Amino acid sequence: MGFEVVKVKEDILIENSKKADELRKVLKEKRIYFINVMASPGAGKTTLLVNLINKLKTEFNIGVMEADIDGDVDAARIVKETGVKTIQIHTSGACHLTAQMVNDAIKQFDVDGLNLLFLENVGNLVCPAEFDTGANINMMLLSVPEGDDKPLKYPLMFEVSKIAVITKIETADIFDFDFQKCQQNIHKRNQNAKIFEVSALEDKGTSELANYLKDIIQGR
Amino acid sequence: MGFEVVKVKEDILIENSKKADELRKVLKEKRIYFINVMASPGAGKTTLLVNLINKLKTEFNIGVMEADIDGDVDAARIVKETGVKTIQIHTSGACHLTAQMVNDAIKQFDVDGLNLLFLENVGNLVCPAEFDTGANINMMLLSVPEGDDKPLKYPLMFEVSKIAVITKIETADIFDFDFQKCQQNIHKRNQNAKIFEVSALEDKGTSELANYLKDIIQGR
Repeated sequence: MGFEVVKVKEDILIENSKKADELRKVLKEKRIYFINVMASPGAGKTTLLVNLINKLKTEFNIGVMEADIDGDVDAARIVKETGVKTIQIHTSGACHLTAQMVNDAIKQFDVDGLNLLFLENVGNLVCPAEFDTGANINMMLLSVPEGDDKPLKYPLMFEVSKIAVITKIETADIFDFDFQKCQQNIHKRNQNAKIFEVSALEDKGTSELANYLKDIIQGR
Repeated sequence: MGFEVVKVKEDILIENSKKADELRKVLKEKRIYFINVMASPGAGKTTLLVNLINKLKTEFNIGVMEADIDGDVDAARIVKETGVKTIQIHTSGACHLTAQMVNDAIKQFDVDGLNLLFLENVGNLVCPAEFDTGANINMMLLSVPEGDDKPLKYPLMFEVSKIAVITKIETADIFDFDFQKCQQNIHKRNQNAKIFEVSALEDKGTSELANYLKDIIQGR
């Protein structure tokens, strides 16, 4: 070939995984279940979270970490529409959260007494998938307007997510979205992925998802 | 507001800056000038590099580090079209290079005897701007098809780049690109930015840029 090939990220990922495992251990001792929510910008993460939190908050003491490069509109909305404890994490430009960043945030966010913690990760279908945040489970959202081919283009996000939620299903007619093809594409990346189809706006499919979350949290 | 705001990236950036300063010191001792080239995918980084290297290789011993998430088409092209020493860096999914990653790559890339080192960073207008790579200077490319408003939308990339190269100027008529507005937008972000307008395809403006690089390298 005339040139060498070097891989340079292993060390960083190994260190991050170690930190993520430590964090999982700490949260397990505190009996806090931690769900990392990932998606592109505009896929409907905050809207779905508001919906799910209002269905789950009678049974769980919920906390939310809202991660954004800057701004705090999502945190303000969670507080206003659900009333649960919320913290805004600013990544100062970073396109993802590392386990270290989550750990730093949790230090400033009194999590004692909580038993369910959501992280709304930075809106991005690439970078957040690379870094284990220390969560018990990854839940990713794919909105109908983004297209049914996304699992083919962004494999890692689908590989690392146990739960894949297809959102904004009320727009399927406009966007010619093929649910069956999308499910096949998701299962190509992760054959054990649990797929939900929801419309947070019309409150469709969200109870099924909330019940599934209840089951896995209580069965931990 | 009802919620706290936490900033979580300072430590990582401080550590990266320290590593970048160390790397700059090592390269200075070896008398190697290091240029970090950044832009969106498809802005014409490799094409411009081939053009510049062929203009500069009689005066400098040049090495190229090609960073990509995966693949090696750009490294193969640099070797084929310039013949200079090239290394392919795979970031295994990472959207930018840290100083540590560059350092790891340089360890495997025998840089002794070189006096000019180019890094073609991962194609991305956001993430690479956040991390000091240890380079002496950042050169960013903005292609005409991307639009003259990009300095407003991606401020950091323009703030950290001493050299801004507007590429693909041969397409300006098709895209209704306002050069004066673009220059104003760039100078809003970095009033000392040195702006070049080039067409690597038609070999326009590239000699001025090559001469400018010669001057800054020899004047270091």
